[in-house]
Amino acid sequence: MAKDVWRVGVAGLGTVGTGLLKFLAERPGFAPAGGKVEIGGVSARSRSRPREIDISPYPWFDDPVALAASPDIDLFVELIGGSDGPAKAAVEAALALGKPVVTANKALIAEHGTELARLAEAKGAPLLFEAAVMGGTPAVKMLREAMVGDDVVGVAGILNGTCNYILTEMEAAGRTFADVLGEAQRLGYAEADPTMDVGGFDAAHKITILAALAFGCAPNYAAAEIEGVDQVDLLDIKLAGDLGYRIRLTASAVKTADGVSVSVHPALAPKSHPLAQTTGALNALFIEGRRIGRIFIQGPGAGAGPTAAAVAADIADVMTGAVRPVFQAPAGTLEPFVAVDPSRAVGKAYLRLLVKDQPGVIAAVSETLAETGVSIDSFLQKPVEDAGGVPIVLTTHATPESVLLDAVERIAALPAVIERPRMLRIARV
Amino acid sequence: MAKDVWRVGVAGLGTVGTGLLKFLAERPGFAPAGGKVEIGGVSARSRSRPREIDISPYPWFDDPVALAASPDIDLFVELIGGSDGPAKAAVEAALALGKPVVTANKALIAEHGTELARLAEAKGAPLLFEAAVMGGTPAVKMLREAMVGDDVVGVAGILNGTCNYILTEMEAAGRTFADVLGEAQRLGYAEADPTMDVGGFDAAHKITILAALAFGCAPNYAAAEIEGVDQVDLLDIKLAGDLGYRIRLTASAVKTADGVSVSVHPALAPKSHPLAQTTGALNALFIEGRRIGRIFIQGPGAGAGPTAAAVAADIADVMTGAVRPVFQAPAGTLEPFVAVDPSRAVGKAYLRLLVKDQPGVIAAVSETLAETGVSIDSFLQKPVEDAGGVPIVLTTHATPESVLLDAVERIAALPAVIERPRMLRIARV
Repeated sequence: MAKDVWRVGVAGLGTVGTGLLKFLAERPGFAPAGGKVEIGGVSARSRSRPREIDISPYPWFDDPVALAASPDIDLFVELIGGSDGPAKAAVEAALALGKPVVTANKALIAEHGTELARLAEAKGAPLLFEAAVMGGTPAVKMLREAMVGDDVVGVAGILNGTCNYILTEMEAAGRTFADVLGEAQRLGYAEADPTMDVGGFDAAHKITILAALAFGCAPNYAAAEIEGVDQVDLLDIKLAGDLGYRIRLTASAVKTADGVSVSVHPALAPKSHPLAQTTGALNALFIEGRRIGRIFIQGPGAGAGPTAAAVAADIADVMTGAVRPVFQAPAGTLEPFVAVDPSRAVGKAYLRLLVKDQPGVIAAVSETLAETGVSIDSFLQKPVEDAGGVPIVLTTHATPESVLLDAVERIAALPAVIERPRMLRIARV
Repeated sequence: MAKDVWRVGVAGLGTVGTGLLKFLAERPGFAPAGGKVEIGGVSARSRSRPREIDISPYPWFDDPVALAASPDIDLFVELIGGSDGPAKAAVEAALALGKPVVTANKALIAEHGTELARLAEAKGAPLLFEAAVMGGTPAVKMLREAMVGDDVVGVAGILNGTCNYILTEMEAAGRTFADVLGEAQRLGYAEADPTMDVGGFDAAHKITILAALAFGCAPNYAAAEIEGVDQVDLLDIKLAGDLGYRIRLTASAVKTADGVSVSVHPALAPKSHPLAQTTGALNALFIEGRRIGRIFIQGPGAGAGPTAAAVAADIADVMTGAVRPVFQAPAGTLEPFVAVDPSRAVGKAYLRLLVKDQPGVIAAVSETLAETGVSIDSFLQKPVEDAGGVPIVLTTHATPESVLLDAVERIAALPAVIERPRMLRIARV
């Protein structure tokens, strides 16, 4: 694909799109593989909205599909977002014409990755999405390219900066989830509708993509188990802290002989653990390979600068002429995604109970756990004001999840137990 | 470069070469970009030496240069090692014929990188060396490919696993350098002649390569400031520990408006710092970009499995047909390497003095420091048995290196000071 000039069409001029135009204006000679980049056209919802950069020099397209299909465009950059609608239509239009596509759209790739990869590979058009996961931190390139000489058995980490910022702030300032989220929204760190982030769906899109890259299986967003941070109680952050842990929204994908499990949930990590030490809006990822062992990578997961830099690196990759599968293997040969029953997973857990302040309660709880087959690792009873009862927290030894859930049900049914126990997993990373 | 079969020649059948043959035997269908890999020939110093794998099925070449030039070889893998001699001759022979080369040879690339890059680019032959730095942890790919959309201003980290293993063991077990090194040699973790590792030269080769990739300057090994771990005293490890630090052999490359500085030296990192928490034979690297901010990557820096996986990933990259400069920019346009005078660097330092047990010593030392313009950050005097005097350790605020060196000279000249003060930098990462 050696070309002297690459005419790039950019659809979507929000933070990342504007950041990309700024970068290309600052680096007019950006030609990492020989050819130069020119903006062949731009498209966005509003042409007149105030922006940090002047877009008047660039040809304007009202319709991103028309931009993608325009004969004046050699490479299409999709920064519209959303798993369907104009983003998908425009990406399909570009790929159908054999044009390389660079996108930051995690929902699109997680939900329609196989179908788009088939189209891209049939047309010989690269489809790159480094900016979709961990912003400027090259998790996609690491899994797609650097790990091909290994067999990856697991990836796990922190993939949503907004959630990590909220959890870090809750712990540091002793503030509630609602309080921190409200402030983050006022400051522009969180969306007006924060569901995608705090509900865990954004992290689930990202870990779905990483699983496909890591294991060579078809991305299957529908199979992801998803729990967000919106149910994380400040009390649990405090009590987990007393036990030496921090709570992190952990996204993980594990491959076993039985299949693949992909999940997002709040989990406890010891304070000395790299995930616990990943604070604020940082992202982090462990990659575990059979030959290489463990690689850890940490960096900014969002923001105009990092994400635009990731898009620019993908543009450079297209310019090198490299032809490789969109995921780890050609779309036609991706293994079907066989979801493992999550209740068979084995791990340690944290349980928080609220019990009546009366004799015999601890005995009743520990008997119930023993009967169910759950063995206690640590135990903490602490007077907490205004808790409406006595909080008891305990951590368990490694236990099958089905057994833990059974124990939770049985404890919930004890007369001295005031509310349903809160169970959090302890990170297995 | 789409080919159905890539006939690979492997020269050098030590740990990594054997690991690569094992990997390819385990993955007969290794075809990450479509084409398949076949072994077209092997070469090593000894044909008959016992190896973990049977090499009799592969065509044998006594001479690696003949293997590199053989018409039966499409891609040459150089795992001989050494900056000159047969490794260089064979790599040049392959490149001269336009054949892609994959190497793990850090000395070769650090010392002859520009010349080899010119040859490779003139012939249109990729020259890849992921395995030369951090083994299976893809530092080279990150800098060469993922950071092209940014301006990197610094890289720093732990690039020699043997030194890190020795430092970790000295601290954990309270053993001397010589003691731990001897054991590492008996266990095969350190070479019989450990100079390249413990003298800091191996880390200097690696940081020289990373500097060229990060800053787009010609690699200049001769300009690296190098200090190894062979002078690290167990006493300093203990005293630094008392002050809340660990000693790490830190390799760093920094770009400023004045030029580039590349250095390797033992430095103190706070115990909570990711470099201090990089223990045993692990490697770690910080990359600081103007747009992306900071990325941290940690993983195994050596070993047959990880290094062979890195070589295999490079082979896969060749197979994609990607054409990009060997370093960050074409060899002909690499900026000349302008070395910054190291004495102008500003940083905090640790000073350890051995003084006579008599009144007025501390006053004399602190007056000398004040006169030189060095401001003290922390101070520790501790009775140490058999030290032959009283050890005093102190850390300074940020100070120009020339001022620190002047202070060391003046303190050394004080009558109550028994031996030349030991100065260690505090890591600036």
